[in-house]
Amino acid sequence: MIYEEVIELAKRRGFFWPSFSVYGGTRGFYDYGPLGVLMRDNIVRVWKEEYMREGAVFIDTPVLAPQPVFKASGHIDRFSDLAVECPSCRSKFKLESVLKRNGIGKVPLNVEEANGVLTSVEVKCPECGARLREAYDFNLMFPVQGKEETLYLRPETAQGIFVNFRLLNNVARNRLPMAAAQLGKGFRNEISPRQGLIRMREFTQGEVEVFLDPERKEWKEIPDYEEILFVPNTGRPVRATPRDAFETGIVKNKALAYFILKTHRILTSVGIEKGKIRFRQHEKEELAHYASDSWDAEANLDDEWIEVVGIADRGTYDLSRHQQFSGQPLTVTVDGREILPCVVEPSYGIDRIFMAVLMTSLYTRSNGFRVLRLPPHVAPYHAAVFPLQKKGLEERSRQLFESLQAKDPYIYYDESGSIGKRYARQDEIGTPFCITVDYQTLEDDSVTVRFRDTAEQVRVQAKDLLESSDLLSFLEGLWKSREAV
Amino acid sequence: MIYEEVIELAKRRGFFWPSFSVYGGTRGFYDYGPLGVLMRDNIVRVWKEEYMREGAVFIDTPVLAPQPVFKASGHIDRFSDLAVECPSCRSKFKLESVLKRNGIGKVPLNVEEANGVLTSVEVKCPECGARLREAYDFNLMFPVQGKEETLYLRPETAQGIFVNFRLLNNVARNRLPMAAAQLGKGFRNEISPRQGLIRMREFTQGEVEVFLDPERKEWKEIPDYEEILFVPNTGRPVRATPRDAFETGIVKNKALAYFILKTHRILTSVGIEKGKIRFRQHEKEELAHYASDSWDAEANLDDEWIEVVGIADRGTYDLSRHQQFSGQPLTVTVDGREILPCVVEPSYGIDRIFMAVLMTSLYTRSNGFRVLRLPPHVAPYHAAVFPLQKKGLEERSRQLFESLQAKDPYIYYDESGSIGKRYARQDEIGTPFCITVDYQTLEDDSVTVRFRDTAEQVRVQAKDLLESSDLLSFLEGLWKSREAV
Repeated sequence: MIYEEVIELAKRRGFFWPSFSVYGGTRGFYDYGPLGVLMRDNIVRVWKEEYMREGAVFIDTPVLAPQPVFKASGHIDRFSDLAVECPSCRSKFKLESVLKRNGIGKVPLNVEEANGVLTSVEVKCPECGARLREAYDFNLMFPVQGKEETLYLRPETAQGIFVNFRLLNNVARNRLPMAAAQLGKGFRNEISPRQGLIRMREFTQGEVEVFLDPERKEWKEIPDYEEILFVPNTGRPVRATPRDAFETGIVKNKALAYFILKTHRILTSVGIEKGKIRFRQHEKEELAHYASDSWDAEANLDDEWIEVVGIADRGTYDLSRHQQFSGQPLTVTVDGREILPCVVEPSYGIDRIFMAVLMTSLYTRSNGFRVLRLPPHVAPYHAAVFPLQKKGLEERSRQLFESLQAKDPYIYYDESGSIGKRYARQDEIGTPFCITVDYQTLEDDSVTVRFRDTAEQVRVQAKDLLESSDLLSFLEGLWKSREAV
Repeated sequence: MIYEEVIELAKRRGFFWPSFSVYGGTRGFYDYGPLGVLMRDNIVRVWKEEYMREGAVFIDTPVLAPQPVFKASGHIDRFSDLAVECPSCRSKFKLESVLKRNGIGKVPLNVEEANGVLTSVEVKCPECGARLREAYDFNLMFPVQGKEETLYLRPETAQGIFVNFRLLNNVARNRLPMAAAQLGKGFRNEISPRQGLIRMREFTQGEVEVFLDPERKEWKEIPDYEEILFVPNTGRPVRATPRDAFETGIVKNKALAYFILKTHRILTSVGIEKGKIRFRQHEKEELAHYASDSWDAEANLDDEWIEVVGIADRGTYDLSRHQQFSGQPLTVTVDGREILPCVVEPSYGIDRIFMAVLMTSLYTRSNGFRVLRLPPHVAPYHAAVFPLQKKGLEERSRQLFESLQAKDPYIYYDESGSIGKRYARQDEIGTPFCITVDYQTLEDDSVTVRFRDTAEQVRVQAKDLLESSDLLSFLEGLWKSREAV
């Protein structure tokens, strides 16, 4: 299973690992290690720059927020999972996962329905085997004790945008449509966190709230694009361009179709295989309390479709609730009409995207060695510099490394072990280019550049690397010209 | 006062503002608005790349952590402020600030000493005037209720590095010295948060833990550098180069001196005026519970010296505590010796640096207009594009904007109001270059580039902007060649 391979690689090489292991660990928390931080920052940059080019404004609001925010948003009353506690051993479980283990696939919608199931079917505690009888609502919010008030850790970054809608719209000079984005942490007190980065209690989101005129749910014209796979909640899966999906009614509004396209572009740009992406519409009973329609971008990981992005039509739910609870008008004037904007929200699960990129990039060569085929702009390091052998070449290669690092900090230096081992170490972490100083370098100042995916090498002048205005682009150019040969 | 000017500008233009204002606000929380997010990301990038080049490894650990982490670190028992509660109106205050208001400058060190002061001097409640009598320790940690356990919001990012020392050192192939860095949020339940970004309950830190051999507290040789201002806790302020400061014993160890230099370079690179920076050594009684020596980088803001970076010698305190509390060995082998590394920690208060950059960059021109003289690589936008007038020029200028934005997303477009107003709007937010399309552009494809600081203009070919490999460097080149004339 690729999942286990990735978990092992991630810990050994420093992409991510379970947090607090020195104290025995705490479920649902992961650290990004040295390679993970660099790679995640690269994924985030792709996301950020794509939305900068859309004209989105960015904001960064606290992860802590006072009660009124989540009373208005509905999270305090409605953001919960059905849970069940064992009457014998007192273990707590998410009802859905216990039912699944007992072969019951259909998930009850509320406590009443759940208790109906538990009465009619004998469902056993996975820990001690006692019969489970009573379900309850488990709120996923983390309460925090402040100096005088109760605060909450936000379950999504979105509310920080909604409560600032007035100020953000002022900065955007009262324009509509307007898009506002936030990157940051969210928190859910999950009953059953999963191993790896798929379901954590603390996670990173990149959420974009697109404020639209409800009479015209449109951001921009949908550009030409390739066909992608849609799975509507009625009817069969279908391949269509985003524009056709809108025009034939598969996707109900133009903005949803636009951001499905955008999301497909971002996911493929960071390195998720096209063949492993689909867009699935939520079933009516799956919808979150604020959503009237929703499409998940899902990635196929180890034969399971996992949500990595949710694109929801939140309608006017959030702004109308905050308007009501705060008593502040949140309307804008468009063409003489006073309107409350509606919202389409593409919400990116950065950790899940990160995991999906690793899982779809890992290959095993015929010689058994592994290679991580990350796009060069997503790989933790742009290049590594080595001496072919330490003897006689160390000074020259260190010198080259330091000059290159002054231009581009994303360069790694290694001189330990054999050159073959060093190449293999870089392949495994996805470094696209290895620059080697050898004895010929001392004569004519040329070095070899090795390409990760083909293991081919070309010779270039060290000077050309040093004088390139952008090292990564230069190296990518070498690679492309090689591929063309 | 510049402070008030910055607060007003920050809110109006979208650098930062108080959080949750729609619900009446919550003290000690601020949002970064659209311009603030861009500028802060630029400051963070300078910090990150400087430490990448040092060979530091990065990590990102959760803001939530279980109790054992902070029991070991000493924060649960010792991370508190002396506080006082009014017996009449029940208001709570930080003791230090109440004493200051009552003209008492010397801060008591513990509850006993504090109660001695309150007994001998009549100190009044700032709210209702009743006499304050009893001090107590107010712990600054935020407890969080998890599913089964109590968690805490971290008061510093550093502990996430210490508890991972073993794993990080494995990734760094057991090398010492080793530096590990983390950017992230910290939380302190401040009794009296200050207005603006100076003392918040949720803040952003960039902390670097440098693990050293205790017998040689040395990272690298201290390079040549200019003289900077040192304020030792014994003796008089003195200007010295960092190397001389170490060699003459002003700064006790080589690593501290090295990172004082590094910090000075980072602070000046992001735009804090050299004349407004000093390094002050902590008085013995000021030292945090984990520190044996500490130097603060302070910025002079409105005639008050404010700490923006702390560079502490934490000795072996943290690793020895975690070794003791976890039962896991945290030693490394160096030259056959089994040692517990000691730590020098440069800790950057990103929000305070941000505030200091704004405050030392704001100037008022002789015509009364304001200009924010940010370094171009720190300014929210690299450039703005305008049509001289909308009529007849709109299409050409939009076209140029879109082509430039495809190269560099940090470009702003504006066509509203007069050209003079548009220049003034960009000056006020620090945009270093304004590119204007005029009627001559339609004839010969040339545009004007205006420099923020001098308001001078030069003509260049639009093609040269579009073909530049890096737009910002190209524009900076134009500026520098102009200055040289």
